[in-house]
Amino acid sequence: MDTDVFKALFYPETVAVIGATEKKGKVGHALIDNLLKTEGNKQIIPINPKSTEILGKPCYKSLREYKGNVDLSVIAVPTKAVKDAVQSSLDAGARAVIVITAGFKETGPVGAVMERKIAKLCQDRGARLMGPNCLGLINTQHALNASFATQLPSAGSVSVISQSGALCTAILDWTVGRHLGLAKLVSVGNKADLDEIEFLGALAEDEQTKVIIGYLEGISSGNRFIKAAEAVTLKKPVVILKSGTSAAGGRAASSHTGSLVGADIAYGAAFKRSGIIRADTFEALLDYATALAMQPLPQGDRVAIITNAGGPGIMAADAVELQGMEVAILDRATASALKAKLPPAASVGNPIDVLGDADPERYATAIKAAQDDDAVDAIIVLLAPQAMTLPAETARAIGKAIRGEKPVLAAFMGGKEVMPGRDELVTYGLPDFPSPERAVAALKAMVDYYRWRHKPPRVVTRFPVNRRRVERIIGRYVRGGQHNVGEVDAKEILRAYDFKIPTGQIAQDVDQAVEIARSTGFPVAMKIVSPDIIHKSDLGGVKLNLSTPDAVADAFDLMMLRINRKMPEANLRGVYIEKMADRGIEVIIGMTRDPQFGPMLMFGLGGIFVEVMKDVTFHLAPITADEAMQMLKATKSYAMLEGVRGQTGVDLSAIANGLQRLSQLVSDFPQIVEVDINPFIVGPAGTEPIVADARMSLLTTGSEHE
Amino acid sequence: MDTDVFKALFYPETVAVIGATEKKGKVGHALIDNLLKTEGNKQIIPINPKSTEILGKPCYKSLREYKGNVDLSVIAVPTKAVKDAVQSSLDAGARAVIVITAGFKETGPVGAVMERKIAKLCQDRGARLMGPNCLGLINTQHALNASFATQLPSAGSVSVISQSGALCTAILDWTVGRHLGLAKLVSVGNKADLDEIEFLGALAEDEQTKVIIGYLEGISSGNRFIKAAEAVTLKKPVVILKSGTSAAGGRAASSHTGSLVGADIAYGAAFKRSGIIRADTFEALLDYATALAMQPLPQGDRVAIITNAGGPGIMAADAVELQGMEVAILDRATASALKAKLPPAASVGNPIDVLGDADPERYATAIKAAQDDDAVDAIIVLLAPQAMTLPAETARAIGKAIRGEKPVLAAFMGGKEVMPGRDELVTYGLPDFPSPERAVAALKAMVDYYRWRHKPPRVVTRFPVNRRRVERIIGRYVRGGQHNVGEVDAKEILRAYDFKIPTGQIAQDVDQAVEIARSTGFPVAMKIVSPDIIHKSDLGGVKLNLSTPDAVADAFDLMMLRINRKMPEANLRGVYIEKMADRGIEVIIGMTRDPQFGPMLMFGLGGIFVEVMKDVTFHLAPITADEAMQMLKATKSYAMLEGVRGQTGVDLSAIANGLQRLSQLVSDFPQIVEVDINPFIVGPAGTEPIVADARMSLLTTGSEHE
Repeated sequence: MDTDVFKALFYPETVAVIGATEKKGKVGHALIDNLLKTEGNKQIIPINPKSTEILGKPCYKSLREYKGNVDLSVIAVPTKAVKDAVQSSLDAGARAVIVITAGFKETGPVGAVMERKIAKLCQDRGARLMGPNCLGLINTQHALNASFATQLPSAGSVSVISQSGALCTAILDWTVGRHLGLAKLVSVGNKADLDEIEFLGALAEDEQTKVIIGYLEGISSGNRFIKAAEAVTLKKPVVILKSGTSAAGGRAASSHTGSLVGADIAYGAAFKRSGIIRADTFEALLDYATALAMQPLPQGDRVAIITNAGGPGIMAADAVELQGMEVAILDRATASALKAKLPPAASVGNPIDVLGDADPERYATAIKAAQDDDAVDAIIVLLAPQAMTLPAETARAIGKAIRGEKPVLAAFMGGKEVMPGRDELVTYGLPDFPSPERAVAALKAMVDYYRWRHKPPRVVTRFPVNRRRVERIIGRYVRGGQHNVGEVDAKEILRAYDFKIPTGQIAQDVDQAVEIARSTGFPVAMKIVSPDIIHKSDLGGVKLNLSTPDAVADAFDLMMLRINRKMPEANLRGVYIEKMADRGIEVIIGMTRDPQFGPMLMFGLGGIFVEVMKDVTFHLAPITADEAMQMLKATKSYAMLEGVRGQTGVDLSAIANGLQRLSQLVSDFPQIVEVDINPFIVGPAGTEPIVADARMSLLTTGSEHE
Repeated sequence: MDTDVFKALFYPETVAVIGATEKKGKVGHALIDNLLKTEGNKQIIPINPKSTEILGKPCYKSLREYKGNVDLSVIAVPTKAVKDAVQSSLDAGARAVIVITAGFKETGPVGAVMERKIAKLCQDRGARLMGPNCLGLINTQHALNASFATQLPSAGSVSVISQSGALCTAILDWTVGRHLGLAKLVSVGNKADLDEIEFLGALAEDEQTKVIIGYLEGISSGNRFIKAAEAVTLKKPVVILKSGTSAAGGRAASSHTGSLVGADIAYGAAFKRSGIIRADTFEALLDYATALAMQPLPQGDRVAIITNAGGPGIMAADAVELQGMEVAILDRATASALKAKLPPAASVGNPIDVLGDADPERYATAIKAAQDDDAVDAIIVLLAPQAMTLPAETARAIGKAIRGEKPVLAAFMGGKEVMPGRDELVTYGLPDFPSPERAVAALKAMVDYYRWRHKPPRVVTRFPVNRRRVERIIGRYVRGGQHNVGEVDAKEILRAYDFKIPTGQIAQDVDQAVEIARSTGFPVAMKIVSPDIIHKSDLGGVKLNLSTPDAVADAFDLMMLRINRKMPEANLRGVYIEKMADRGIEVIIGMTRDPQFGPMLMFGLGGIFVEVMKDVTFHLAPITADEAMQMLKATKSYAMLEGVRGQTGVDLSAIANGLQRLSQLVSDFPQIVEVDINPFIVGPAGTEPIVADARMSLLTTGSEHE
C-alpha cells in the first residue's frame, strides 16, 4: 500500500461521508455521528441530496457541489448509487474510498460484476478501495472512527484486521473495561481491492502497531499471503483466528496424499510456514494479543509459578506440562533467598506457595526471586481471594517488583473481590487472565513466537538434477493431454531428480520377460504398463518376489490372460520387470497441490500407518533440510524409524533428503499436481532409499476441464 | 451421613465458635463475623478464654462454661488446643465438629497422629468431624456461613465440594455478578473423617442441590468413590475438576499394561465408569455447572445455531463438529416458516443468520422455529453487538420465546454493550457464555450426561469357569512366595477361564521334545520354562515356527547350551513345546491393578501399535459386553480389526468376550496384580482367538514387601 493511500485511509485531513443522514438507526447516521464526535483535527463533509445540514454541519447534495478536495471518502448509499458516489469521490481527489454498502459479490454474479466495476474505477485513477460490505475502519492515534461501530476503543498497540464486521464490534466491545488498547481496526469486507495481505503489510510498517490480530474466513491468494505474512511476523507477532475449520473435510483426490489433506491442514501448514500464531477460539485470539502487547517475549519455556493456594498452583503446573513447556527447576540460591523471607510453611519449590494468608510483600519477594533466577524464563502469578488477601495491594506490589525482562502473566481467580487487583495489574502493564490455564496458554503462544523469531534463516538446498529430462517426459504427457503418469514414467522423472529406482525394463512377450529377469537378477517384481490402468493390483497386474524363470513366465501369461478378460479395451504397453527392492521400512512421501497454498509435501510411515492411523505430517514446499527432519519427528511412529526393541533404525537423513528432492521437483514443475512415492523403502544408515512404486498426475489441458 | 449429622452441619440451631475473636485479620474473627451476620434463625455462641464479649455477643471462656447444648461446633484455635476444643464440643452434645485449624496431617507424621486422635474422639461419641485444615461450609438455604470466606453467595441449585479452600473462595468470588447461585459449599480439608464420598452421598439426597461440582486432588478410596458416584450421577449431574493430571506420568511396572497406564488415565476411567462429567479447566467446571443448573438436558446432539453475524455462526458450527455433535439439518417446514418471517437476505439454513440489523423479534422467530423443529435437540443463540443491536431487548425476546423443553445456551459476545443482555438472559434462566466455543463445550457436557442417564443398565455377564483350578495354581504360587507366574501356568489359569490355549507340553530332553512336537503336529513353538526367566526371548529362550523333528532337536540343544552359558544359576523346568497358532491379527489384552481404583483392563492392537503408537484403551473391571466393545472401537486402529483394503475383519465379539473373561478372572482373584495376554491372536468371524503368550504377576507375601 502506497504511503499516500495509507495516510488517506488512516490519517485523512478531509473525510467525505456520502449517504450521511440524521435518521437514527441508519448506518449513514452512525457513520457521520462517529466521525463528527472525533472531528478535532479533521474536516468532515456530510453528503446527502435531501439535506442541507446534518447534526449541525452544512450538508452538500453531492460531493461535486462541495468542490474542494477530499482525502478519504466513506460511502453508505444504496447499492445502485454506489458507483456514482465512487466516481464523485475520485473526482474530488480521494486517494482512498471505503464502501460500507452491502449487496455486491455476496449476493451473486450481478453484484460481483458491479463490485469489479467500482474496483476498476478506483484502480484506473490510482486510488484504492476498501470494502464493499464492511464496517469501516478505526485509528485511535488519529482519533478517527470511520466506521459504524459506536464505540471508539482506548488507544493501544494492538491492531485488528477482520473479515467479519460483527467480529470487529464484538472485539471492540470486549476491549472496553478489559484494558486492551487498540491502534487500528480494519474491516476488510468483500476485499474487492484492498485485502488482508495489503493491510498486513501496511500494519507491519505502522509504528503504533505492536501486535496484529486477525479474523479470517478465507484468503485471497495463498502464495502472496505466505510471503507477506512471513515478512510481517519477522517484525511483529500476528495472531489469526481462522474459522470454517471443520466444514471442509477431506477432498476427492486420487492420491493418498490428496485424500489426507483438508483445507484446514493446508491453512495450518501455511500459518506455520509464515510464523503466524494460530488462535483456536475467540478468547484465545484476545488472550494472546493481550499477552504479546503487554509483556516482553520469554527467551525459553521454563516457567516459575507463584501462588497463594495449592490447587491453582497444581492447575498451572498441569497446564505448563500439557502445553509442552517446563515447570522450572529453581536454583538453590532462589530457594535459600525465599526461605529467608517467607514463613516456614511456605513452599519454596515450584510452584512457589506463598500461603493463603500471603501479604503483598510475600508476592513481591517471590517475584523478585523468580526474576533473579537464571533457570526461569517466564513467571505465572496466581491469586485466589482468601480471608486475608488484598488483591489491589498485591497487584501493586507485584507491579513495582517487575523489571520487564521476563514476561509476567497473572491469573487473579474469582470475580468481584479480585477486580480491583486486575485494574491495578493493568496500570503496571501486567496482563491478567481468568484462569491459570488461559494464562499458561497465552505464555505458550509467546514462547512459540520467540522461537520463530530466533530460528536460523531458511536455506533451501538445491540439488544438481536432470531437469531437461523431466521437461521432455512431462511435455510428452501434456501434449497428449494425458493426466496420469504411469509408474514407469513417474520413476523416470524421479530418477532424473536422483531418486534410486530399481533396475528394470519393459517386456513385450514371455521370452523377453524371462530374459530381462535373468539380466536384472532374481527375485523380480512384474507390473503391467498401461495408461488406462491406474490401480494395477486390483486387476491382477502386479506380481512380487518372483524367484525363477518359470515363475516369471507363468506370471506374464496369467497377467495378460486376466487383464484381457477384465479390461479388454485397455491399451497395454507390456509388463515392467524390475529387481525387487531389498527389505526395509516402507514409508510414503508425497505431494498434493493445495488450491490456495500450492505444493503440500506429506510424509508418513507406509501402509496402515497412513491408511488407518492417518499418522502423517504436511509441510509446504519448498522445504529446508531442518523442516524435512521436523516432518519425520512430528509423526507418532517416529520411534519406529529410530528403531524400537533393539532393531536398527533407518537412515533418517536419507528420507529427509528425498523429501527435499521431491520439494525441488514439484517447485520446478507446477504442472505436477499430485505425487505418491509409495512405498519408499528405506534401510539402515548409509543405504539409499528405493522408490518401489510411484504415481503422479499432471495438470494438462484435458484435465483442466475435468 | 446420618440425617442428624447432616442437620447439625447444614441446618444447626446452635453453633459454637471456639476461637472466636475481635481481632480483625484472624480466621476466628472472620468466622464469628460471618456467622453473626447471618444469625437470624440460629444461636451463635462465641468461645474465647480471653474475652467476655465479642461483636456485641456474650463470650464464654470455654464451651464447658456455656453449659447448654450445641448442634455444631466450629473450631479455630491453635493446633495444640484443638483436641480439648473438640472434647468440649462433644461434651456439649455437638453432632458435628468443623476443625478449621491447620497444622495436622499436612505437616508430617506428628500432625497425622494428632489428626487421627481427634477423629477418633468424634467417632467414639457418634459425632462426625469435618476438616481439619479447611475453609468451613456454607448453606444458603439456612443462611449459614460457617466459613471464613467473607462472601455469602446468592441462593441457587449448585453445590460445591472442594479439597482446596482457596478454590472455594475463588468460586464464591466468581459467582458474584455472574448469577450462579449456590446451594451448599463444603471445604473438605484433610478429610480425617468426613470425605468427598460422604458429602457426595449427602448432597445427592439434598433437595436444594440440582448440580454438584467438585475440585479434587486425590480420592480417599477409589472403590467407595466409584460406587457412591455412580449412585449420585444417576440422580443428578456431578462435574469434577481433578488436578495433578500431568505430574504422575507412567509408573514403574513390568507389564505393558502397567507401563501404559498413568494415574490420570485411572481417574479418567473411574470418572467414565461412574458417570462423572470431567472438567479440564477451572472455567469449564463453572461453565458446565451453569448450563446444567439452568437448562433442561438435550435429548440428542443435533444443534441449531442462531446468529446475527456469519463469523460467530461459523465458529459455533466448527465447535459443534469438533465436539463430535451434529449441526442439525433443519426440517423443510422450519425453513419455510423462517422464510416467511425473516428478510430475504437472512440465511434459513443452519446456522440461522438473522442478519446484522436483527431486531429482538427476529431472534424470537428463529428461537420459536428451532424449538418447533423435531430435528433440533438443542439451541445455541449468538449475538455480536452491531450498530442496530439491542442486547437487553433481544435477551428479553429470547427469554419470552423459550418453552423450556430444549436447552438454549447463549453467547452474547463482547463486553460492556452486551452486559445488559446478559443480565436479562439470567432472569429468564438462560445461561450466557463469553464465546461460541464455550457455549458449545457446555452443551456437549449436557449431551454426554443425558446419554449417561439413559444408557441401558449395566449387566456384567458371568461365564461358567473352573475357578477351583485357578485357586489351586495361585495358592501354590502364594505359598511359595512367588511373584511371577510363568507362561505355562499363566496359560493354565487362562484355560480354566475358557481361553483357547495351543496344545503343548513340557519336554525335559531332546527325545521327549521331538516326541511332543510329533504328537501336537508341526509347526511348533518352543519356549524355555523357568521361574527365574521373565524375558525369555532376550536369552534366546524362544524359537518359533519349527517345522521338522531335526529343527526341534537343534533348537532344544541350542537353547540349553545358551541359557546355561548366560544364566547358569537359572532353575530350568524344561522346554515347552506347543503348536504354532494360526496366523491372524495380534492384539494385546491385559490388566493392571490401580492402587486407587482396582483392576484396569487394557486393549490394543499388538506390537508397535501398543509400543510405539500407544494406541490403547482402558476400562475398569468388571466390564459389560457393551463396554468391552466400546474399548475396541475407541482405538484408532479399530479399522484394522474391521478389515481394511478388502481384507476380512476379525471376530470382534470374540475379543470382547476375551476382555470379559479376563475381567471376571481379575475380579475373582484380587491376588492377580498384572496380566498381559500378548499376543492374543484373533482370526475371522467364527474363529476362537488364541493366547499365544501370557504373563501374570501376583500379590504374594513376598511381593508385598517390595
